[in-house]
Amino acid sequence: MSAHDEFSRRLDTLAAAMETALMRELSATPRAGDIARPERLMAAMRHAATGGKRIRPFLVVESAALFGVDERTTLPAAAAFECVHCYSLVHDDLPAMDDDDLRRGRPTTHRAFDEATAILAGDALLTLAFDLLAHLDLDAERRIALVALLAQASGIGGMVGGQMLDLEAEGRFNASKQALSHSRADIERLQAMKTGALLSAACAAGAILGQANEADRAALARYARALGLGFQIADDLLDAESDTATLGKAAAKDAGRGKATLVSSLGIAGAREQLSALVEEAVNALAPFGARAAMLQACARFIAERER
Amino acid sequence: MSAHDEFSRRLDTLAAAMETALMRELSATPRAGDIARPERLMAAMRHAATGGKRIRPFLVVESAALFGVDERTTLPAAAAFECVHCYSLVHDDLPAMDDDDLRRGRPTTHRAFDEATAILAGDALLTLAFDLLAHLDLDAERRIALVALLAQASGIGGMVGGQMLDLEAEGRFNASKQALSHSRADIERLQAMKTGALLSAACAAGAILGQANEADRAALARYARALGLGFQIADDLLDAESDTATLGKAAAKDAGRGKATLVSSLGIAGAREQLSALVEEAVNALAPFGARAAMLQACARFIAERER
Repeated sequence: MSAHDEFSRRLDTLAAAMETALMRELSATPRAGDIARPERLMAAMRHAATGGKRIRPFLVVESAALFGVDERTTLPAAAAFECVHCYSLVHDDLPAMDDDDLRRGRPTTHRAFDEATAILAGDALLTLAFDLLAHLDLDAERRIALVALLAQASGIGGMVGGQMLDLEAEGRFNASKQALSHSRADIERLQAMKTGALLSAACAAGAILGQANEADRAALARYARALGLGFQIADDLLDAESDTATLGKAAAKDAGRGKATLVSSLGIAGAREQLSALVEEAVNALAPFGARAAMLQACARFIAERER
Repeated sequence: MSAHDEFSRRLDTLAAAMETALMRELSATPRAGDIARPERLMAAMRHAATGGKRIRPFLVVESAALFGVDERTTLPAAAAFECVHCYSLVHDDLPAMDDDDLRRGRPTTHRAFDEATAILAGDALLTLAFDLLAHLDLDAERRIALVALLAQASGIGGMVGGQMLDLEAEGRFNASKQALSHSRADIERLQAMKTGALLSAACAAGAILGQANEADRAALARYARALGLGFQIADDLLDAESDTATLGKAAAKDAGRGKATLVSSLGIAGAREQLSALVEEAVNALAPFGARAAMLQACARFIAERER
């Protein structure tokens, strides 16, 4: 089997396991300590947590696997990262934010339910992420290290801050409502926060789970940085070149909003070139791990070549 | 000095210390690991975290003080609880939720900024709460126990779930848009989740910080349960009897929405009687602690007698 086929098979298997884990976690049956579980809230959370490529959980599980950690241990930690990703999509899709009707080929949570329910479902998914980490079957040191990592990556200086910069980059808050001109460094910083931080943290979580040494942590961090930037360029290329039916969400939104992206800054050919270089950088960063890193390397190639 | 005066003095001192701690935490200067701190986000978070009675931090600090834990240790943990409270107010005030213009006598966060910024500021405050707990100067066991406690109290089976039940109780999601009739048990359950869970968790946090034994934890839990229910009855009485200027937020909202509360269920006189009984219950629960519990006991009386 080629590395790509093996990767596809593993990603599918992980996605199915993740779906099962999340749906079990989001069942209507109250857990110990819950006063009650409102059914409408649970249904909205399940809607928000269904589908998706499950890239972040894959990164957690495969990074931990580099150090021999079993998937039974890493899956609940991976679910926490996916909860944060799903919550961010629910809130980003809200009318006051990106105002999207479609996500993963289905109605966004506020369209399937209503805005108030979507806000609360997002809040509850974010809270659940930390709940999951707190209850991992691991020593307290690693659990609290994962909490610190996830909070940092998803908070002010990471994902939420990146979303704020993204709204500002659309020119939403300046009087003329004109998109601001942004340097390539500005755009890269925005993307490093908005999408890069959580992807990097997913890889760093694997290193924490596996009690990796400094050199291995640094190699994974180099991989994750290149992967994150490549991921965003691939996303921007898809937005520029794909159509809504293929994408499962609205296409050509960036240009419609006059938004500066790495594609608008580098041009399509330049962006493709940059993307190839980043994939090579990601692949090379993991060379010290030898054949054990084949799945993470295939993941970097997949991200560059994906169609949605 | 009477217990009440001493309580007022301590609450004022704690509120000032909390304000300082939160404003320092929410400064524009990036912390280690932050890629950047968007100024608009920080300003909105500071707006959301300014003012308030700081009851939850007071409960954390004073509960921990029962076991001799110093305020320097407990203040950052108390700040985490206040961050969760503040985030919940920001999201609850949103147009899609309670649609409020006024909070603590000032414009709500989405009125002072905009809806998108308010959603993100709330998300970032919730995330920051777990960040603060992860970095407490304490052993990992107590830090992770606090994370588990706060996540449980503020998530599906606690605060967020309670807010969902509250929206449902307004009849928002049934076709006729009529408020549902709710039993007193239903209303108590809703309140136990929406406001009781976080108040109880604040007291339980003090017990964790102080490594309390089972009997002391149980006594604090009894106090917290009575305090939480009393707090909500006092809130409902204020909504029914006060005016917007005194309250610093819109008054008489519950009746306007045809919402069932313990006041509409028990009547004003019945609610006052129930409130007195709950204050006595709270005070008596702490009898085993003797004079050390005087501040928490005064807090229960304050909550019943407050004017906003």
